[in-house]
Amino acid sequence: MGIINGKDFIERLNKLENEIWLEGEKINGKISAHPAFKGILQSKASLYDLQHDPTLKEVMTYFLPDKKELIGTSYLQPKTKEELRKRRRMTEQWARVTHGMMGRSPDYMNTAVMSLASSASLLKDRENCFPENITSLYERAIKQDLSFTHTFIAPQVNRSQLYLGFSKEPISARIIDRNQEGIIIKGALLLATQGGLTDEILVISSPRVLFNSDEAFSFSIPSNTKGLKFICRQSFVGGESPFNHPLSSRYEEMDSIVVFDSVLVPWDRVFLHDNVEAAVDLKNQSSFHTFAYHQVVTRQIVKTEFILGLTELLIETINVSEYQHIQEKFSEIIIGLETMKALIEKSEYDAEIDQFGLMCPSMVPLQVASNIFPKIYPRFCEIIQLIGASGMVSLPTEKDFNSDIRADLDRYLQGVNQNGEERVKIFRLAWDLTMSAFGTRQTQYERYFFGDPIRLSSSLYNNYPKDRYVKEISTFLDLNN
Amino acid sequence: MGIINGKDFIERLNKLENEIWLEGEKINGKISAHPAFKGILQSKASLYDLQHDPTLKEVMTYFLPDKKELIGTSYLQPKTKEELRKRRRMTEQWARVTHGMMGRSPDYMNTAVMSLASSASLLKDRENCFPENITSLYERAIKQDLSFTHTFIAPQVNRSQLYLGFSKEPISARIIDRNQEGIIIKGALLLATQGGLTDEILVISSPRVLFNSDEAFSFSIPSNTKGLKFICRQSFVGGESPFNHPLSSRYEEMDSIVVFDSVLVPWDRVFLHDNVEAAVDLKNQSSFHTFAYHQVVTRQIVKTEFILGLTELLIETINVSEYQHIQEKFSEIIIGLETMKALIEKSEYDAEIDQFGLMCPSMVPLQVASNIFPKIYPRFCEIIQLIGASGMVSLPTEKDFNSDIRADLDRYLQGVNQNGEERVKIFRLAWDLTMSAFGTRQTQYERYFFGDPIRLSSSLYNNYPKDRYVKEISTFLDLNN
Amino acid sequence: MGIINGKDFIERLNKLENEIWLEGEKINGKISAHPAFKGILQSKASLYDLQHDPTLKEVMTYFLPDKKELIGTSYLQPKTKEELRKRRRMTEQWARVTHGMMGRSPDYMNTAVMSLASSASLLKDRENCFPENITSLYERAIKQDLSFTHTFIAPQVNRSQLYLGFSKEPISARIIDRNQEGIIIKGALLLATQGGLTDEILVISSPRVLFNSDEAFSFSIPSNTKGLKFICRQSFVGGESPFNHPLSSRYEEMDSIVVFDSVLVPWDRVFLHDNVEAAVDLKNQSSFHTFAYHQVVTRQIVKTEFILGLTELLIETINVSEYQHIQEKFSEIIIGLETMKALIEKSEYDAEIDQFGLMCPSMVPLQVASNIFPKIYPRFCEIIQLIGASGMVSLPTEKDFNSDIRADLDRYLQGVNQNGEERVKIFRLAWDLTMSAFGTRQTQYERYFFGDPIRLSSSLYNNYPKDRYVKEISTFLDLNN
Amino acid sequence: MGIINGKDFIERLNKLENEIWLEGEKINGKISAHPAFKGILQSKASLYDLQHDPTLKEVMTYFLPDKKELIGTSYLQPKTKEELRKRRRMTEQWARVTHGMMGRSPDYMNTAVMSLASSASLLKDRENCFPENITSLYERAIKQDLSFTHTFIAPQVNRSQLYLGFSKEPISARIIDRNQEGIIIKGALLLATQGGLTDEILVISSPRVLFNSDEAFSFSIPSNTKGLKFICRQSFVGGESPFNHPLSSRYEEMDSIVVFDSVLVPWDRVFLHDNVEAAVDLKNQSSFHTFAYHQVVTRQIVKTEFILGLTELLIETINVSEYQHIQEKFSEIIIGLETMKALIEKSEYDAEIDQFGLMCPSMVPLQVASNIFPKIYPRFCEIIQLIGASGMVSLPTEKDFNSDIRADLDRYLQGVNQNGEERVKIFRLAWDLTMSAFGTRQTQYERYFFGDPIRLSSSLYNNYPKDRYVKEISTFLDLNN
Repeated sequence: MGIINGKDFIERLNKLENEIWLEGEKINGKISAHPAFKGILQSKASLYDLQHDPTLKEVMTYFLPDKKELIGTSYLQPKTKEELRKRRRMTEQWARVTHGMMGRSPDYMNTAVMSLASSASLLKDRENCFPENITSLYERAIKQDLSFTHTFIAPQVNRSQLYLGFSKEPISARIIDRNQEGIIIKGALLLATQGGLTDEILVISSPRVLFNSDEAFSFSIPSNTKGLKFICRQSFVGGESPFNHPLSSRYEEMDSIVVFDSVLVPWDRVFLHDNVEAAVDLKNQSSFHTFAYHQVVTRQIVKTEFILGLTELLIETINVSEYQHIQEKFSEIIIGLETMKALIEKSEYDAEIDQFGLMCPSMVPLQVASNIFPKIYPRFCEIIQLIGASGMVSLPTEKDFNSDIRADLDRYLQGVNQNGEERVKIFRLAWDLTMSAFGTRQTQYERYFFGDPIRLSSSLYNNYPKDRYVKEISTFLDLNN
Repeated sequence: MGIINGKDFIERLNKLENEIWLEGEKINGKISAHPAFKGILQSKASLYDLQHDPTLKEVMTYFLPDKKELIGTSYLQPKTKEELRKRRRMTEQWARVTHGMMGRSPDYMNTAVMSLASSASLLKDRENCFPENITSLYERAIKQDLSFTHTFIAPQVNRSQLYLGFSKEPISARIIDRNQEGIIIKGALLLATQGGLTDEILVISSPRVLFNSDEAFSFSIPSNTKGLKFICRQSFVGGESPFNHPLSSRYEEMDSIVVFDSVLVPWDRVFLHDNVEAAVDLKNQSSFHTFAYHQVVTRQIVKTEFILGLTELLIETINVSEYQHIQEKFSEIIIGLETMKALIEKSEYDAEIDQFGLMCPSMVPLQVASNIFPKIYPRFCEIIQLIGASGMVSLPTEKDFNSDIRADLDRYLQGVNQNGEERVKIFRLAWDLTMSAFGTRQTQYERYFFGDPIRLSSSLYNNYPKDRYVKEISTFLDLNN
Repeated sequence: MGIINGKDFIERLNKLENEIWLEGEKINGKISAHPAFKGILQSKASLYDLQHDPTLKEVMTYFLPDKKELIGTSYLQPKTKEELRKRRRMTEQWARVTHGMMGRSPDYMNTAVMSLASSASLLKDRENCFPENITSLYERAIKQDLSFTHTFIAPQVNRSQLYLGFSKEPISARIIDRNQEGIIIKGALLLATQGGLTDEILVISSPRVLFNSDEAFSFSIPSNTKGLKFICRQSFVGGESPFNHPLSSRYEEMDSIVVFDSVLVPWDRVFLHDNVEAAVDLKNQSSFHTFAYHQVVTRQIVKTEFILGLTELLIETINVSEYQHIQEKFSEIIIGLETMKALIEKSEYDAEIDQFGLMCPSMVPLQVASNIFPKIYPRFCEIIQLIGASGMVSLPTEKDFNSDIRADLDRYLQGVNQNGEERVKIFRLAWDLTMSAFGTRQTQYERYFFGDPIRLSSSLYNNYPKDRYVKEISTFLDLNN
Repeated sequence: MGIINGKDFIERLNKLENEIWLEGEKINGKISAHPAFKGILQSKASLYDLQHDPTLKEVMTYFLPDKKELIGTSYLQPKTKEELRKRRRMTEQWARVTHGMMGRSPDYMNTAVMSLASSASLLKDRENCFPENITSLYERAIKQDLSFTHTFIAPQVNRSQLYLGFSKEPISARIIDRNQEGIIIKGALLLATQGGLTDEILVISSPRVLFNSDEAFSFSIPSNTKGLKFICRQSFVGGESPFNHPLSSRYEEMDSIVVFDSVLVPWDRVFLHDNVEAAVDLKNQSSFHTFAYHQVVTRQIVKTEFILGLTELLIETINVSEYQHIQEKFSEIIIGLETMKALIEKSEYDAEIDQFGLMCPSMVPLQVASNIFPKIYPRFCEIIQLIGASGMVSLPTEKDFNSDIRADLDRYLQGVNQNGEERVKIFRLAWDLTMSAFGTRQTQYERYFFGDPIRLSSSLYNNYPKDRYVKEISTFLDLNN
């Protein structure tokens, strides 16, 4: 089989009839027709269609040796720097179609599956571990061009360091039984973006301090597995009109709580269970993080380009380019964009073959980027608000422009080179990006994409090779040690 | 007559049948029943009711000499520091009911009318000026407890300093004719908060560089004057449920563009016309700004108290008070609150009788507060987002809690001392304050309440008495000048 | 006796012959003639002389009931708000003479002695406590107008939280023996500003985590007590020329390590020993901190005024007042100054009679100021550097202006209204304040005056009354608790 | 001839007997023996010696075709990316020896001469232009391994935009006569770092608004040319002891005002005169800036590595690595370092052959770095101060450790793994880098190295290619233009 197209994706998904709850109701009927989901699913379908665009074939697909089916590049296990760059170009391509707004685009999850599969040997010959099930997941995913989401965050009832989290009934998902057919999971995990909107869900438990062995598991199961529930937050689709809601009508991904109501995970789906050490190794030693970071930073660069273009368009619309403080604010965006670009390129230039035989990007520049972006993205949104000023609030709608007062609006809301309608379009986009419920969720999403910013900087400090530089000072000062 | 109650307010407003456009349609029927307006009007009505609360009489009302009617304290022309503080206590009272979310609460506009009236003598014996019409407005307002909005900002087609803004047809509102009955105004003004939701609209043109005499005018007219149109932006009421939208269901004020379609302003309503100098003086020399700042800063303090309480409640809910970076963020809010409090109190302690005989707060501390708040308010919203983290996105709705999945939610979304429903209530409030379309508009509103922040700091620099300090240095250095 | 003058102060100090080490040598001869100390001692002497200025008598002095001697106002135990304000005016007066550069001006330490004495009852009837010795210190200080320094910081060998600090020989000063004559102290304490330059040294041990009872003591002894050594850091006096070093030639206070080489503290000097709880109470419950903060914040306000004047003079000298970014930077200084002023005034307006019968300023505003100043002071120095730009480095000296090249300098270094010499004077002052070794030490001093900034904000968070505000939210949301 | 060694450099310089004024006196005798200059000259000599180190030959030198003399790599005109990287390695090598503290190391100026020479064709066939004199300068510089400084900044009497700067006698250097022998220059230019400490001085006038043709000139002349005076600022050498002043005793470069007292510049030294347009082109279109930025950013990276090492050593010395705020501060340094590295590498990877045939680094990443470093360098210094805290002030000297109190110091100032002497060494280095007069001048130097930060961001905004991104938004929104 190999690559699917948008229609394939939608049809397969509709057939699954996953259990999704929204506003107190279980979704019935075709998920692709539901107002809260049809925009995002259509956008996602268009990504799959892109794989069939003959002009993009070179970038978007590849062949496996001795096979005839085209495979999506996101599944490619890179062996050379050229293949690594091809992966980046593929991600750029998909990210551009969605302006970097889709966090869980197919390449993100495919990258996860690809890199986990490459690291499967980490689980070899260990207790309660089944590396072959990771490998077969990868093969199945390639063959069927499967879509995934994943989840791994425990509900945060109590974030105190001293909290032990004992409770009789599981809150965070746990293994409550193991039987002939598989393991039984009960409890919840947070936040599955696009939960219920994919073929399968990949679950990788995330070891932390005070972690029990019944919390150590990893598997992938179909989204319609019995007992699996996706409880959606409120939808941030502002409405169907792309004029009014240029972004949320297309890219609202939805996040959901994943409830495991005594879900049976068959043995052939289990990667590991009841083995804390293996869970830790899979998380920390696999190449998952590195490749995921490579995909994410690429998407964020595309998003920053979008922001840069929009900001300049705002500036031109109200003609404020002469102001030094406007120039300074804009230059922050340039600096952010160029810095991110330089870092991802450095990660590729410094790439090396890792222990699993993959050409793996250098982690430090990606880690640096992951410390930078959560800080600059909210600042960019603020800059747009500061430049747009009161214009960010003057927001008539499509209906206004189709009514008797259109002439007033075109006159009184005109920009330097735009009539009112065009000016409002531009400002509505700025608003949807930075001030709508969709936009502020995007901000929060980017802020926490890589995890708690405080821990990100601690981890950067702890992992960074500092000794060489300390030694230089010791030598200069002629110290004994 | 004197003070009205909420019912009076609503009934009078419904009768006006102001021309209000929303989403391409002219509002018909009772404005107080319209989904976009009923929340705010009910909140406003509750403020008028408060004037009749016997326990608050002392604070909320006063008597005019030789009159029996109670008058709202916001109309009080203070002659002593005690009266000035009484004004503050009145504003605090009203602001607390609406948690500082209502920018154009009645006291704001009443303060405007009161202070303009006290400064009416500025227009005495000047060309095209009618100070007596300001005085009679004040008397009428007191007698009928009128509600107002105001508008004074020209549409910002082009913000370049070099832009002259010539166009045949007026964009910014201008006097296009003067006849026996009055002056005729054509064009638009931005952004009237609560435009169309008040008895009258006060219009004070705002002189700027390259200002024509036909733009220099000032008057107050009924909101239902012929030719007057209020074009609303999109409504930010998220819905009627206070569970889902605790703030926007109650306090969404609406902003509108005010279109003057050849509106006749009768002579007895005109304060001044075709006199740039007088317009400048009324703006800069009246006590309007000082008293308005005094009201605004008071409201902002109450809002900051609300933020402080909510932030601590968030901290307790997820039990993160032990973290030093959380403490540091919270201390920023304390510092902001205490600074604002100290500044407003200083403005009162340093108050002096002004040229019009009023006990006028000291302007410098208020100006300093007006430079501070637009910067700290967005930061406070950011702090809430940083503390709430992923919890800001896990947002089920009231319907979810009334459905079969309630048990799941109560279990998996519980806080340290709260069940899921209470926890979600708290986080939804945090979200509505900082991330909903209502909340982000509040942020933008506070950011620009006092005008362009760049100009605020320039004006502070230019007006501040620096000489004494420079002289001290010259003396120390024994300089010649 | 009562108030002394500058000559008295110098003569008494010279007689003490304290053991002071500087650059590996023990100071011999008159300390007041030593190049490293004569500037600061002369400045300090001028403060004492000010007490005799007839025009300032009202501010600088007071009478004790039934006594004829004038007493310095810094010893005044305020019973009314008027007396509290008198204290502030006194501090302003002294701070102005030294432009806020002298951290340990006499009023700072006199305030310490005054407030400790007022709180002596805290030690009443407790083990190893001698409150009467505090009282007699206060009386002796008043009568002789004694000068003091103090010290209480343990050497920071290891700042890890887990460090226990055991070592056979004391590092941090401890009681190593108690005998008939008194207690014997061995070890060191950091950093005594003006150590050795005062009549006495007040020692108050500072309880911390893992604190032993032999570290719990408090006393005051003459600076020339046997075994007491003051080891100075490098002197930051840049030279004697006030042209070259307008500040360091006058206000370099010196900091020293205080070494107790088995120092005998006679019983009549001991306030407490071997009583951890009493030491904690004396530190936390006495009014020492409140009155000290009141003095310090007042001094910092005067210093900020100095900075404001200098900054404006720089701006005028190179004529950059038209630039918006300059105005914005300057407005930061205004905001800082006015905020500090508002806070100290609020602390006085909200003052209340404390448990010891003194009119005690409100602590919260002072605590807020103590969180603000350590952040804004370094920023003000940075602003001066940013405005002065390359001019901060073009620094010829007095000798240059007395040489053949003077004409070149006057020509090529002239300012808008100044010849080269005057311009250089102004820039040298800016340099001495922000870039000389003296200036950077001042920055570090203000940054840490109140202690570790991280702990300052934690303490603000922990002590602030938050409940009322949390309750307001709970009520609004109709929560159960 | 080709490369010289340190001894050659010193001897040649001593022979010149340049006219240098310091503290009102003209330097007599060997400049290399003068306390204010001997440290920097020795450091510089060591750089020349490095060219002869056989292990570094490959990096530090190259051969011209058909020539036998080794040439310093800083003169290399790169034709390939490999040669460009060789240039970087050479700069790294020299910068490491001086820890990035020497701004005007020989490679900086050699790079200037090299790149100007490559761009000489810009002046071909233009009025008053002599490109052949640039070429011959380059050849002479290579042959003799000449040392240079340069100067181009007009004295900033008045920085107002409206200031015309007329004055009868020149303040900023101008051509006051042209005769058979050459042009005559009178006036001053600021600030020549190492002015008088080099063989020649390169003068390139810097066009600005309101620029007269008599200010448009460019040339290089020997430092001992008649009428040329170097007036030094105060020296920031703290003393000769490397223990006390590890940096200033070695790397204090000195800045001086260059006075042209009717200096005759012979025709064969003139590159251009009285041609504003040519002066503008030479400044803006030559590859000078690009190559200079490449050198500077490389040096700044080495300096940042030094800072990173020192900061970690401080952290270890007082054992504070466990604190999250310490880790966060340190991670800022990592982020800065890695960002700068990524940018310079990107500038090399994206390098292209320019119009003059050189492999020229890409300007945008270098421009971005030049916007970043002036902001992060002062922040790094602040971080060091914040980590060092009170330890930055406890600064005994070498003499203290050679005296009777050494035992006290070793005991009471010890670090976790260091005795007092070693700990003091480390803190003195931190102090010399960030708080001494030498250190603060370094901060100011880096802040303004690339010019006014405000203009740097304006220039980045204006030159950045934004159109492509704007067009993307226009397409997305389906706008007409």
